[in-house]
Amino acid sequence: MTDPLRPQGGFADLLGYGLASWREDYAEVTLAVEERHMNRSGVLHGGVVSALLDTALGYAGTYSPDPEVVRRAFTLSLNTHFVGTAAIGQTLTAIGRKTGGGQKIYFCSGEVRDQDGRLVGQGEGVFRYRGKSGG
Amino acid sequence: MTDPLRPQGGFADLLGYGLASWREDYAEVTLAVEERHMNRSGVLHGGVVSALLDTALGYAGTYSPDPEVVRRAFTLSLNTHFVGTAAIGQTLTAIGRKTGGGQKIYFCSGEVRDQDGRLVGQGEGVFRYRGKSGG
Amino acid sequence: MTDPLRPQGGFADLLGYGLASWREDYAEVTLAVEERHMNRSGVLHGGVVSALLDTALGYAGTYSPDPEVVRRAFTLSLNTHFVGTAAIGQTLTAIGRKTGGGQKIYFCSGEVRDQDGRLVGQGEGVFRYRGKSGG
Amino acid sequence: MTDPLRPQGGFADLLGYGLASWREDYAEVTLAVEERHMNRSGVLHGGVVSALLDTALGYAGTYSPDPEVVRRAFTLSLNTHFVGTAAIGQTLTAIGRKTGGGQKIYFCSGEVRDQDGRLVGQGEGVFRYRGKSGG
Repeated sequence: MTDPLRPQGGFADLLGYGLASWREDYAEVTLAVEERHMNRSGVLHGGVVSALLDTALGYAGTYSPDPEVVRRAFTLSLNTHFVGTAAIGQTLTAIGRKTGGGQKIYFCSGEVRDQDGRLVGQGEGVFRYRGKSGG
Repeated sequence: MTDPLRPQGGFADLLGYGLASWREDYAEVTLAVEERHMNRSGVLHGGVVSALLDTALGYAGTYSPDPEVVRRAFTLSLNTHFVGTAAIGQTLTAIGRKTGGGQKIYFCSGEVRDQDGRLVGQGEGVFRYRGKSGG
Repeated sequence: MTDPLRPQGGFADLLGYGLASWREDYAEVTLAVEERHMNRSGVLHGGVVSALLDTALGYAGTYSPDPEVVRRAFTLSLNTHFVGTAAIGQTLTAIGRKTGGGQKIYFCSGEVRDQDGRLVGQGEGVFRYRGKSGG
Repeated sequence: MTDPLRPQGGFADLLGYGLASWREDYAEVTLAVEERHMNRSGVLHGGVVSALLDTALGYAGTYSPDPEVVRRAFTLSLNTHFVGTAAIGQTLTAIGRKTGGGQKIYFCSGEVRDQDGRLVGQGEGVFRYRGKSGG
C-alpha cells in the first residue's frame, strides 16, 4: 500500500522529498537535508532548492479532489532566488501556491523555509496542463 | 586518484553528472539520463535541468588556471526555461558561459542540449563570489 | 514644493507612476493605465508591468527613516510573470516586499494588482546596494 | 505613410524604440537613450531594458513573411539580468531569438547591447500565441 501523499517517481526517491500537504491551489513538499544534497563547497546545492520549488509549484496547480482524476502539467519557466542556506540535519519545506491562469496555463509562486521559518529560497513558475486534465 | 574534471560532492554523485569541459568563462556538465531523473509522469524532472544549469553556470565563473587557487561562488538567482524534453538513455550537456560582472558579482547564461543538439532547456544566473576568490 | 512620495526622474514622469507607500521593507507604486501604456495589439505592454515591479521592489529595500539618508540600489535580476491584463482607465498598484539579504545584496518579491485586487503580474528581484548606503 | 518596421502603439512611441530588423525567429529593436529613460539616480531605468527585451523577444516569434498575416502573442514570463549600464546619448539594440516551442507556446532569449557591443542586459521569455496565428 502506498502513501497517497508520497510522490512516486525516480527523482522524488533520489532526493528524498515527500508531499506533505496538497489541496486546491496549494502544496507543501518537505525534505530532510543530508550529505547527498550538498555541493562541492559543502553548501546546499542550488539544484535542490529549484527541484523542491518546481515540485511544490507544479503540485499546487494539479490537485484533484477525485483520486481517480490525475492532472498533469509541464513546467515552462521556473525562477529561483537563493535567499539563505541550510545545513545537514535541517528540514526544508517548499510551499507552492497557484496564483492565476486558465485552462491551459497556470502561474504559481512559492518559497522554501527551514524548520525555524527562515527563508532559504523563493520562486515562481509558469506551467502548462497536459492533455484534457486542465479543465 | 580523482579525475580533476569530476565535481566532488554529494549532489554531483547523487545525480551522476560530471564536468566535461572547463576553461575561462566557460563550462560544460554532462549527465546520462536514467530512471532516477524522471518525475511521477515518467518525464525528466525539471529539477534536473535546473541543477545542471546551476552547476554549469556556476563553474563558468570560477575557473582558475592555477589548480592551487579554488574559486567559489553562491548562486543568487537562477532562471530555467524548459524548452524540450529528454528520455532515458539520452546524454544531456549543459553549457555555461560567463557574460559579465565584476569582482563580486557575475552573470552567466547557458543551455542544456541532448546528444543530437536539441534544446532541452536554457537559463541564466547571477552569482556572487565567496571570500577573496573573485579578484 | 515636491511630494516626497513622488519619485523624481525621467522614467517615472514618462510612465506616470508614483510612490504611494514606503516604509521599512515595503513599497507601493501606482499607475493609471492610459493609451500610452498599450502595445501594438492594444494590450498593456509587458514592459509597464516589469517597470512597476522593478520600481516597487527596488524601493522596498531602500527605505530610510532619516530623510537625509538616501539609499540607492541597482537591480541585478528581475523576473516578471504576466498573470492577467489591464485596460485603459484602470489603476495598477505594484507592491514590493523585501524578503531577505544582507549589507550588499537584497531580495524582494511583489505583485501588480488592479483596483479590484485582480492579479496582473508577479515578480521577484535581486538588488545590490550602491556605495555605503546598504549598511 | 508609415514605416513598416516601426512598431505602432502608445508604448513604443512613449519610449521611442523602433523595430530595426525582423525575420523568421529573429528581431532587433533599437532605442536612443535619453533623459526620459533615467531613474531617480540618473541611471538607466531597469524597466527600459525589460521593455526592450520583452519587445524584441516577442517579435522574434511572430514574424510573418506575408504582410497580410499578423501574428500576435502574449508574454507569459520574462526574465531580465542587468549586466551593464548605459548613458544618455548611447544607442541600445535589443536582439531577440526564438529558441523553441510549438503551435501554442514559444521560447526566446536575447540581449541588449550598446553601440560598442557592450552587454547591458540579457533575458529570456516564454510567450503564448494569440488566436489561430501561431499555426
